[in-house]
Amino acid sequence: MHGRDFRALLFDVFGTVVDWRRSIIHEGEAIGAHLGIDIDWAAFADAWRGLYQPSMEAVRSGRRPWCRLDDLHRESLLTLLDRFGIDQLAPAQVEQFNRAWHRLDPWPDAVPGLTRLRRRYTLATLSNGNIALLVDLAKRAGLPWDAVLGAETAGCYKPQPEAYLRSADQLGLAPAQCVMVAAHNDDLRTAQGLGFGTAFVCRPTEYGPDQQADLGPEGAWDFVADSLLELAAKMGT
Amino acid sequence: MHGRDFRALLFDVFGTVVDWRRSIIHEGEAIGAHLGIDIDWAAFADAWRGLYQPSMEAVRSGRRPWCRLDDLHRESLLTLLDRFGIDQLAPAQVEQFNRAWHRLDPWPDAVPGLTRLRRRYTLATLSNGNIALLVDLAKRAGLPWDAVLGAETAGCYKPQPEAYLRSADQLGLAPAQCVMVAAHNDDLRTAQGLGFGTAFVCRPTEYGPDQQADLGPEGAWDFVADSLLELAAKMGT
Repeated sequence: MHGRDFRALLFDVFGTVVDWRRSIIHEGEAIGAHLGIDIDWAAFADAWRGLYQPSMEAVRSGRRPWCRLDDLHRESLLTLLDRFGIDQLAPAQVEQFNRAWHRLDPWPDAVPGLTRLRRRYTLATLSNGNIALLVDLAKRAGLPWDAVLGAETAGCYKPQPEAYLRSADQLGLAPAQCVMVAAHNDDLRTAQGLGFGTAFVCRPTEYGPDQQADLGPEGAWDFVADSLLELAAKMGT
Repeated sequence: MHGRDFRALLFDVFGTVVDWRRSIIHEGEAIGAHLGIDIDWAAFADAWRGLYQPSMEAVRSGRRPWCRLDDLHRESLLTLLDRFGIDQLAPAQVEQFNRAWHRLDPWPDAVPGLTRLRRRYTLATLSNGNIALLVDLAKRAGLPWDAVLGAETAGCYKPQPEAYLRSADQLGLAPAQCVMVAAHNDDLRTAQGLGFGTAFVCRPTEYGPDQQADLGPEGAWDFVADSLLELAAKMGT
């Protein structure tokens, strides 16, 4: 099974490569301390992420035209500031908070793992994040991508098949030459159905200490690892 | 003038960062030695590049739908193999020769210059090359791009304005926050007209020893340099 000639690895980013939840909580706590806002920032982070899929679904379904994730994040943020009763943020502070998604910290194994994998494979994002967000993340954290691909370059959001297929095609590769790397079984299920190789990276605290889903592999994935360093070892790099 | 807050540098690639002519000549000579084909490979390289603008013009004008540069290069190659009376190449060898454009050597100052510039600026391609071509070039030569943008991500070929404007927008930046870097005055002229900063990098042998055009700056460009290392110094990195 692993004798396949994989050439490129395509990475989910939020949760798989970066720890969005802890990063958003820290940004919220810093704003709260600065402005005297005392709320449960973990609940706020979870609620923000909770609006992620519904916001993209409006685009996927065609109910609204293409809209990059920065703009969807901002709409969700405004909804949540209202819901949590936060009215102390000036517009520039709202924008600054929204860009917290450009400043997410990587999991500790991400940079060394990607650095090893890159010796042998082409590494690209296949994320629903927009290009500017992904470039800022990578530059700040030192993520060594060969290409920043995904929703914005494909013109549609995962799990729409075109997001996967166009990304492989843009690399000049067939799906069978690419491995989708994700901490989410549903992402891998879609990719596998399209002919991609699959690698599950277990991130059991992505959603906090009480995470219920994606605690282990739920499919016949080509690779399963607890970190990107372990994946690098399993992929012979 | 240089007090502007530039955040990103957008690079023309063919001629500005890589020495396409010498690289194509070398690939041609190697094929010629292998198959016993004795022609003027410099003339062949120049003819191949000579079909570059006409092939894109068919797309720009709308006479044909979007087509990535690899495919335009292949059509031009088939035309030239016929014109030069070369019929010894099997289809796989034609494909291998076409991919010579994925294996172009950088100018000697490119990697050290880009490495210095990247400390301070976001570096992206703004090339008519397709994504796979640019990723292969970068991976082979060690070009440290933060993002691979250009014709394929914008959906149109330079000098169409959208190629420039969409690339800046995909980085989340205004044109005035970006510097177009090119060895070609016409590329900079278009970019400047759209509000971009401009940097001319002089490559007086891009077209060989008898080069006639682009031997020096022909506009009021923000930066003029003889190499990317000199540009790095002039841009304070």
